[in-house]
Amino acid sequence: MAAKPKYLTGDIPAINEFIDRFDVFLLDCDGVIWSGNHVFDGVVETLELLRSRGKKTIFVTNNSTKSRQEYLQKFTGLGIPSDTEEIFGSAYSSAIYISRILKLAPPKNKVFVIGEAGIENELRSESIPFIGGTDPAFRRDMTPEDSKGLADGSLLDPEVGCVLVGLDFHINYLKLAHAFQYLRRGAVFLATNVDSTFPMNHSFFPGAGSISIPLVYMTGQEPLALGKPSQAMMDAIEGKFQLNRERTCMVGDRLNTDIKFGIEGRLGGTLAVLTGVNKQADWEVDDPIAVPAFYVDRLSDLRAAVS
Amino acid sequence: MAAKPKYLTGDIPAINEFIDRFDVFLLDCDGVIWSGNHVFDGVVETLELLRSRGKKTIFVTNNSTKSRQEYLQKFTGLGIPSDTEEIFGSAYSSAIYISRILKLAPPKNKVFVIGEAGIENELRSESIPFIGGTDPAFRRDMTPEDSKGLADGSLLDPEVGCVLVGLDFHINYLKLAHAFQYLRRGAVFLATNVDSTFPMNHSFFPGAGSISIPLVYMTGQEPLALGKPSQAMMDAIEGKFQLNRERTCMVGDRLNTDIKFGIEGRLGGTLAVLTGVNKQADWEVDDPIAVPAFYVDRLSDLRAAVS
Repeated sequence: MAAKPKYLTGDIPAINEFIDRFDVFLLDCDGVIWSGNHVFDGVVETLELLRSRGKKTIFVTNNSTKSRQEYLQKFTGLGIPSDTEEIFGSAYSSAIYISRILKLAPPKNKVFVIGEAGIENELRSESIPFIGGTDPAFRRDMTPEDSKGLADGSLLDPEVGCVLVGLDFHINYLKLAHAFQYLRRGAVFLATNVDSTFPMNHSFFPGAGSISIPLVYMTGQEPLALGKPSQAMMDAIEGKFQLNRERTCMVGDRLNTDIKFGIEGRLGGTLAVLTGVNKQADWEVDDPIAVPAFYVDRLSDLRAAVS
Repeated sequence: MAAKPKYLTGDIPAINEFIDRFDVFLLDCDGVIWSGNHVFDGVVETLELLRSRGKKTIFVTNNSTKSRQEYLQKFTGLGIPSDTEEIFGSAYSSAIYISRILKLAPPKNKVFVIGEAGIENELRSESIPFIGGTDPAFRRDMTPEDSKGLADGSLLDPEVGCVLVGLDFHINYLKLAHAFQYLRRGAVFLATNVDSTFPMNHSFFPGAGSISIPLVYMTGQEPLALGKPSQAMMDAIEGKFQLNRERTCMVGDRLNTDIKFGIEGRLGGTLAVLTGVNKQADWEVDDPIAVPAFYVDRLSDLRAAVS
């Protein structure tokens, strides 16, 4: 059984001890830094405090709809100083996996993408050829000609060797039918992440996992997921930043992604914040998904360390 | 363990004995009568033979995209004599279930539909109010205004008490987001059927179950399915036709829908045909999904009974 998590809010000595234990903080964004376009109070100052104490901050997000460059624009627009080197999204993680681990060889090296521009931009940054994505040719109803050409294969690109599925606000029958045919013909099945829901406007909407689940149901195959809690993402982060896992802490609001990610990655610590999906009651059950080592009401509670 | 199925093809005495055992034949359509728009050779004559011997033939299909009226047009167009009273589809089964068993009461008696016109026509035939379906207002991208209105509930119809999901060639993010919000607010979750794939042009495409599975993944709830192998459909057929189950045989190509449907419905017999999805090898495994009582290579093999 996991130890009881330590509650840090208001406990200045404990907060200082906590901060001193780590060199690197991996921070989830939604539910931790912001909710949609609303930055939580005191977050900017908290990040400044951590950096002023020599800590490295890395933003680790499962949202695949934005590339690192687009994330940087969002950070800047919200008044949070950052740079692309600090940002690690599941679209980037997927592109890294395809180019450096999967290493698809011609003539089967194209990726069929279900997802938004964020995925396309990260694939381009790794020079990975792809089709689908935001191409208007796939944003339409399926015609009888499509149906024939998909069935006999004449409409399929013989160079596709991988299907990558992320959150797609323009999901439709034509894209699902294409992806299914590629998977039936042996394409590698990847997902940026498999979160069932996506938080927006203080509510929930279909997440990336709800876009790929029809393909799981049809093929009986599970995708390799490249977002949290997949350790493929942790390995990619470690490879890029050369971090010491023992001196690294994962900060997040979700037990099944963030906290599980940190525990399974054998990081030195995990910190849960209660400004997002999960609450204290969620780990105080008989068989919790994951139990954090520490928790605070909100990220900015760490600012008490300055006084 | 189930007995070994009896192979009837070419065995005239066995075919005659088989036909004599039953008064009613429930026939699946796709993979049995036709494949898409191609009627299998000899099927029309086989149906004539059965009827000439005083047998009732009832077409039982999970395809919810057509109403009984639209099915009749298809039968007529393909040269198969029939009438709407002989046709029982999952859209009709769903409408019957909603009006006669669920009996939604105002002010929560509207159905949010994901599906095609077949469902709408059958709901209309039972005077069930509905929204969604083929309404162009739902066949478009989600806007930021939709996202806000779905999150705060202002865009939701407070009269919706049920979400019914069937095969929808125009599935999109907006429809899934609506259905999810209705389900979160307690709407009853129904599916015309949960087949993962849909046969078309001698290949497979996403089926009705692949349209509802994202909602299962998001809510953790399973829908009540009204198509085969759900016994809700068998009960509806029995109620309508007053059939004697002992003297009824289910004919189909799929073990997991047709044959299972007949066995779980304790019918007098099940007949598998090998012109569709499943083959002999599929029930000759250690733990088969379902084993038919009889099988033939093709439905028209029963015509040998005339000689």
